[in-house]
Formats: sequence, structure tokens, C-alpha cells
Amino acid sequence: MPGSPCGLLLDYKTAKFSLTRNRRVGLLHRLLQLSALGYLLGWVLLLRKGYQERDAAPRVAVVTKVKGAAPAGAAGRRLWDAADLTWPPQGENVLFLVTNFIATAQQAQGTCPESPSVLDAMCTEDADCPMGNPVVHGNGIKTGKCVIFNATRSTCEIYGWCPVENSTLPRKPLLAEAENFTLFIKNTVHFTKFNFSKCNTLQTSDPSYFKSCTYDPVFNPSCPVFRVRNMVEAAGEHFGDLALLGGSIGVLIKWDCNLDHPAAQCQPQYFFSLQDTRYNFRTASYYWGSQRQLYRNLLKLYGLRFDISVHGQTTRLI
Amino acid sequence: MPGSPCGLLLDYKTAKFSLTRNRRVGLLHRLLQLSALGYLLGWVLLLRKGYQERDAAPRVAVVTKVKGAAPAGAAGRRLWDAADLTWPPQGENVLFLVTNFIATAQQAQGTCPESPSVLDAMCTEDADCPMGNPVVHGNGIKTGKCVIFNATRSTCEIYGWCPVENSTLPRKPLLAEAENFTLFIKNTVHFTKFNFSKCNTLQTSDPSYFKSCTYDPVFNPSCPVFRVRNMVEAAGEHFGDLALLGGSIGVLIKWDCNLDHPAAQCQPQYFFSLQDTRYNFRTASYYWGSQRQLYRNLLKLYGLRFDISVHGQTTRLI
Amino acid sequence: MPGSPCGLLLDYKTAKFSLTRNRRVGLLHRLLQLSALGYLLGWVLLLRKGYQERDAAPRVAVVTKVKGAAPAGAAGRRLWDAADLTWPPQGENVLFLVTNFIATAQQAQGTCPESPSVLDAMCTEDADCPMGNPVVHGNGIKTGKCVIFNATRSTCEIYGWCPVENSTLPRKPLLAEAENFTLFIKNTVHFTKFNFSKCNTLQTSDPSYFKSCTYDPVFNPSCPVFRVRNMVEAAGEHFGDLALLGGSIGVLIKWDCNLDHPAAQCQPQYFFSLQDTRYNFRTASYYWGSQRQLYRNLLKLYGLRFDISVHGQTTRLI
Repeated sequence: MPGSPCGLLLDYKTAKFSLTRNRRVGLLHRLLQLSALGYLLGWVLLLRKGYQERDAAPRVAVVTKVKGAAPAGAAGRRLWDAADLTWPPQGENVLFLVTNFIATAQQAQGTCPESPSVLDAMCTEDADCPMGNPVVHGNGIKTGKCVIFNATRSTCEIYGWCPVENSTLPRKPLLAEAENFTLFIKNTVHFTKFNFSKCNTLQTSDPSYFKSCTYDPVFNPSCPVFRVRNMVEAAGEHFGDLALLGGSIGVLIKWDCNLDHPAAQCQPQYFFSLQDTRYNFRTASYYWGSQRQLYRNLLKLYGLRFDISVHGQTTRLI
Repeated sequence: MPGSPCGLLLDYKTAKFSLTRNRRVGLLHRLLQLSALGYLLGWVLLLRKGYQERDAAPRVAVVTKVKGAAPAGAAGRRLWDAADLTWPPQGENVLFLVTNFIATAQQAQGTCPESPSVLDAMCTEDADCPMGNPVVHGNGIKTGKCVIFNATRSTCEIYGWCPVENSTLPRKPLLAEAENFTLFIKNTVHFTKFNFSKCNTLQTSDPSYFKSCTYDPVFNPSCPVFRVRNMVEAAGEHFGDLALLGGSIGVLIKWDCNLDHPAAQCQPQYFFSLQDTRYNFRTASYYWGSQRQLYRNLLKLYGLRFDISVHGQTTRLI
Repeated sequence: MPGSPCGLLLDYKTAKFSLTRNRRVGLLHRLLQLSALGYLLGWVLLLRKGYQERDAAPRVAVVTKVKGAAPAGAAGRRLWDAADLTWPPQGENVLFLVTNFIATAQQAQGTCPESPSVLDAMCTEDADCPMGNPVVHGNGIKTGKCVIFNATRSTCEIYGWCPVENSTLPRKPLLAEAENFTLFIKNTVHFTKFNFSKCNTLQTSDPSYFKSCTYDPVFNPSCPVFRVRNMVEAAGEHFGDLALLGGSIGVLIKWDCNLDHPAAQCQPQYFFSLQDTRYNFRTASYYWGSQRQLYRNLLKLYGLRFDISVHGQTTRLI
């Protein structure tokens, strides 16, 4: 019943074709077809990997631990260990290792000459020092007097924590031995899409393994214990240069895994880069004197800041 | 040889066409073609920017530094500087600036009346205070006695750090001058896909530039030194309101760069938003008394918490 | 004017068709068409949700607060509260709760026998202890002598902070009551693409609500106050096991919201997972003795580290 609705549904309609037996036209036609196929295979499948599923947003956990001990150069015979030199202590993905410092002991609230390194502190007479508001870039409030700072210079007197910090830094890093400290980075990634987890450390039953090994990209890729000096050099710097005024090093842990291969082949790569050639901050601790007066010890700490970031992606055949 | 395999490969087969010379049908046909072209040009190319490559996952480094000095209002003539008021000191992407506090000095382990602000601390007789387990929302373990807290109220006696914290906050922020503090935010982004890095600070050889400039979106976009009060106001709040009970401010640094334009045009924008109208935490420091008894000073700190986040994307013609 | 340019533009050219009335060929043809339609509807629309817009990169703010008080088991009658046991105090997305510790009080710079737990510290004569460089995995610099550590063992003498830490841990966690501490997690997400913000806490006018509620996925999903013990058990562990040597717990807050539904239905889910079965770090505090000698108290802290991460996505019809 060719005219019935069901019959219409099962009709097969196709275009009428004409066949041209001309080699030139035929060659051009096949070339066009080949280029379309080449685009599909080359760009979509090979370059864009259109046959793969991809997860590029892993959950990331980073735990770090610094180990080492260093004698302080100029500050007499004293030995500092990781608990003294690492900040914050709990081992997160941003950590700081002291390599140099300016200590200002026993500051108390009072009046004293401002530091000549502050922009508008220099003065020749009291009129240069208007008694005033708290200064943003100085160390206290001007009292209105111009006082002698040292033999050659006078500065405005301030009220604040006194004496003010001495801005001259030792010429050599006080903790140059910190280059031999090691940084242990434990990093776990979890790819939710594929329910796949991996840690950058060797699965070992030997508890002392991570106490004795050091990272090597070829011989020890599963021992993420990095010597500080090696990290600085991998970032293209000399430890001695950075140690004096501090610096910031970026550590990138890069996972790029194909889950169609064995999981043992899924190993991260480590990249080190210089982020900044200066880094310092101040911190203070407080105590009460015998006459119930509040004192603080101010430390200006210079050192290496490590920013650890993790980028990961895994792919799998669809 | 039209029948040979090679001949077949070079044949050109095309559909037979019939040509209709009807203006209505022809117009409709062209309109359909135009709308397909319009979709391609308008949506895929212009709105979705299908002709561009995009990297929206930069590596980000943020270093912050707070500067300033403020006299404490009620606490007598005392001047606090950034080292006293900033937390943590090392300048990460979450930082805290104290604007108010409750200090409880010289707590020692012992017994004392619980604070009346604790939920079930009020009592009229000993039976209201069952001797018990450590309380989760109180300050210690109930000893089983009901004792006088002050002239009008009795509360359960506890064993713990005594005396307990006084829960009345000063009516004015003690460190109201913290509004004039400045926050320096140094932010570097690195787009791996295009190997493009950019910092939000001016590339200058003048070391004192960042000591004297203040951010202005029009005149000083390359000086990311922000006055605290300005940030609070950009988030739609008054500094005085937030300073009393603390608050949390989100700082968003947004990079949206077209790498086909000169790199100098790639500048971040800064957005400030209120995340919370209260923020406080407690911290303690410990010391030993003359009779080898452990004391602590407890501080409940109210203040501004700044959460700095960075969103970035760069695009480039394919 | 069929031959004019405008006429050509409005011509309608279509292929000539031949109609085959063959049920088998027709059926095959319709099946091919149905499978193409099925792919479009099933894969592109239903599985890949091609009809939706998606934002999977929210801005995230996390504020945490620990509450509780616990008596220390072996260390005599002493009560510790959240300010004593939480680290860092300011409540970020990584936080640490002490459950056990080794305290080494009153260390000073000097010479003493190295700990026998250090790899190459054991010795029988002075020749086993070459006077030398700072040791990375030990506690100081070897002086060249072999000295008696205790009745059964001799170790190399070192110069450093003395006495060295005693490496024997209490057999029971000193702060086992920390299981009853609570962790309040306040999390706000903001989806820029849809300008949609949501907080995981109930919008309530009752200030004491979060002081008395505890999270329950069914009855209290809007009260993100988690009991520590419950979190550890949700991660598949026993609190007592982790408390002894510490551990790391991942907390995942997952938002998956459909903005075409009411905003009240947009609620996060909480997932807890074990990241590591050991976690500890050392921290030191410093003080001056009566003869101006520097001392430090060293603490090796074991405990629970909570890593809070937020994953969010929202979808909306295009």
C-alpha cells in the first residue's frame, strides 16, 4: 500500500546522481575529502584529543616539613634548627625559611629619634617635625622635636616602640647554612571524575626511607625530599644572592596522567621558578619587665618563601 | 579505463539538481542560509569567541604587606604598628588586621565563676550545676557549686583557665586609627598555555615608589597600595561599623587580557566585597610565674580579615 | 528576468530525488535517522546537558572556628581550651587540633648526647663521631666525642639545643577529650557568571543558634557545626587511633545547584576522607633566663589536621 502513512514512513528517498568521468574534477573532489578527513584525524583527534575524557581539577592536599640545623654566622656560636627557622610551623603549601634577620631587642613604648631611612624623618630644626598624626610609613607619632640620631644626622623624635629598628642588614646572610636544609613535600591528588588518587611519595614500609633519601629526577623520583640549595639553583638563582635579602620561589607540581596506562607511570614533575628577588616580614614577641612594663622583641626576617602549587590533569579513553 | 579501480577513485559523483525560478521560494531559501551564517558569526565567533584560544587557569602568587602605626584609644598612651596588629606576619593571601580586642591577662588553672554569657551557666543553687564532663561551649568543667559572679548574678563554678574572659567589648574600637594603615598586594600571574607572566606592580627602578604612592584606579593603577578605609568603603561599609566587631572583606584581582594587544594594556582590576559583618578569634601566649606556675594571656581579637583571590583569563587568536 | 544577478540570487536550487518504495531499505534508513536523533537527545542533551550553561569556578570564602575544652590526661589536672589547642588561631581553611604532644622544656645552646633515634648517632668510641658539619637529620653538630646516653646506649655528643627531645610518645593521647570539640565551618560561594551567592549557614536572627546546634545531614543540614569525633568516623577512622600519632582529614564541601530551582534547594553536601594517618610538627617559644641566657620550650605536636576544600558548580537553562 504505497500511499498509506506507514508506507510513506518506510519509503526511501535518495538524491539522483550524475557521474562525471573526468580525472581532474575527480582528483580535486578526493583532495577536498582527504583534507576534511585530515582535519578530523589530525586536529580533533590527535591535537585536541577528542577521543579522551579529561579531568583537570583534582582535589589537592599538600603537607610540608623542613629539616636541618645551621650555625648562625655572625651571631656567635649558636645552632638553629628547623623549629627556629621555619614559618609557619605546621607545614602548609606556603612556607618560609629564615636566612637572615635584623633583631631589635627590648623595645618599649617611649620617645626616640626616627630612623633616617623613613622618607620625611630628616630634620635640621624642630619646625621640620610638625607634631602630628600617626605616620603611615614611619615608626610612630612625631613629637615635634628634632633630635640627634647619630654623629652626622638629626631626625624627628617620635613616640612609639623605641629604640627604632636599625635598618642596616648584615652583609652576609647570618644563616647561610640553611642551604643544606631539606624540604619534604607530600602531595596527594584526587581526580573525582575518575575516582583516582595518587601520592607523590613511594609506598614503602621502611619508616626511615624519607629520612635518608634526596630527590633526583632520574634515580629518586619518588623521594620528594628537596635540598634547599638545589631548589634555588633549579629556579636559576644562587642561594647566596637570595639568602641576603630573601626571595620567593614557586614550586609547581605537575601531574599529567593517562589512566589507560598503568598507575605506576603516573608520576608528577617538579618545576622551580623565581617569583621575587626580595622577601621579608616583621614579627614581634612580647614580655613584661620587672616593673610591669611591656617590652617586645622585634624581628625583621629575610628568607626564602616557597609557594607550592599543584596542577593536574588525567585523561582516559571515552 | 572507466571501469578500473583507479578510475572509480577519480570519478566525480554529484547530485542532479533542479532549478526553481520562484522569488518566494528563493527568498525563503536565502533567509535560511543567512540565519545559519548569522548564528555562526554572531554566536560562535562574536559571543563565544570561537576564533580565540583561552587560558583561564593561571598560576598565581600573592604577597602582602601591611604598613602603619596607630595609637590605642582607651588603653592609654600606646602606639601599635603593623607588626603588632597584623596576623599572620608573613603576608599571605588571607590576612587579618586587629581593630579591637578583649585582653584577659594572667589566667591560671584554677576555679572561678563561669561567664554569664555561657548558655547554661546561670544558677540559683548547687543543684543547678551538676559536677561534670568538660563543657563544649563553656570555659571549663563544672565543679558542682553555684557561686556569686557579681552583685546581681550567680553562675556555676568551673575549673579551667581563671578568671574567665570578660565578655563586654569596648563601645568604640580601640584601634580606630587602623583605617589609615595600607595594604600592599603584590600579585603575579603566569599563564602556562601562552607562557605569559605579568605582575600588578609598576616595573620601576625607584625603590621608594611603593613607599609613597596610593592606589587610584585612574591615576595610579600600577600602585597596589590600598588604604584600609578605602577598601572597606569600596565594599560598601563604614570602617567604624566593621572595626567594632570585625568583618571579612573579599578582595578580587581580576585579569582579563587579550594577548593580541600590547602587554602594557594587560592590567588587573580590583573588586572589594563584604563577606561577613563579624570576625574574631582568640589567641594565647604562655609564661611561667615566679613559683613555676603556668600563666597565659588570652586575647580575643576583633578586626578586618582580607581574603585575596585572583581570577584570570587571557585570550589569543588561534 | 531569470538571467539577471538579482534573479540568480533568488533562484532556488534543490537536488532531484528518486523515491524507492522498498520496506527493508526504508526501515534501515529510518533506523539510521533514529540513532542520530538518539545520540543528539541522549548524549548531547541528557548526559552532556548541552542545553545548560554552567559555572564551575566559584569564588570561595571559608572561615572556621573551633570550640571546646579538654582536661589533659597524664599531664596532671589541667584544662585546655580551643585557644590552647588550635593552630593557626585565625580560622582559615587548613587548621590543626592538638591531640598529643611531646614537650621539651628549657632547652639551651650547649652540648649533650644525640638522640638514639637519629640514624647515625649510635657509637662505641670517639672515632665513630667525626667532628663535623651540621647534620641535616640530627639535632646539632657532632663535637667528636662518644658519650653515654643512658644505661644501655652511647651516642655521639652534639652541640645544639640541649637536652635533645625525648622521642618516646605517651601511649595514650594526652588530649583524648578533643573528640568532643566542635568545628564551625562558614562557607560562602559566589558564582560570578550568574551573580549568585549562597552561604552554608542558616539565615537566622537567633545569635545563639550556632552555639547550641550540631550538624546532622537530615535534621540540621544548615548548622555546619561538626563534632570532631563524628568527622573522623565519617572518614572511616577511629578517633583514638588518629589521636595518638595525628592524622590529616580532608573535608570537601560540594555545591551542585540548579538555578532553575528555588535557591533554598541549593544546599552543600559534606564529605570527609582520610588523607594521612600521621601528622605532627614542632614549634618553639623563646625566653631569656635570669643570666641573660636564651632558652626555648620545644613542642612536638601531634593532632588532627583538617583541609577544607570547596567544589561548586551551578547550572541554568540557556
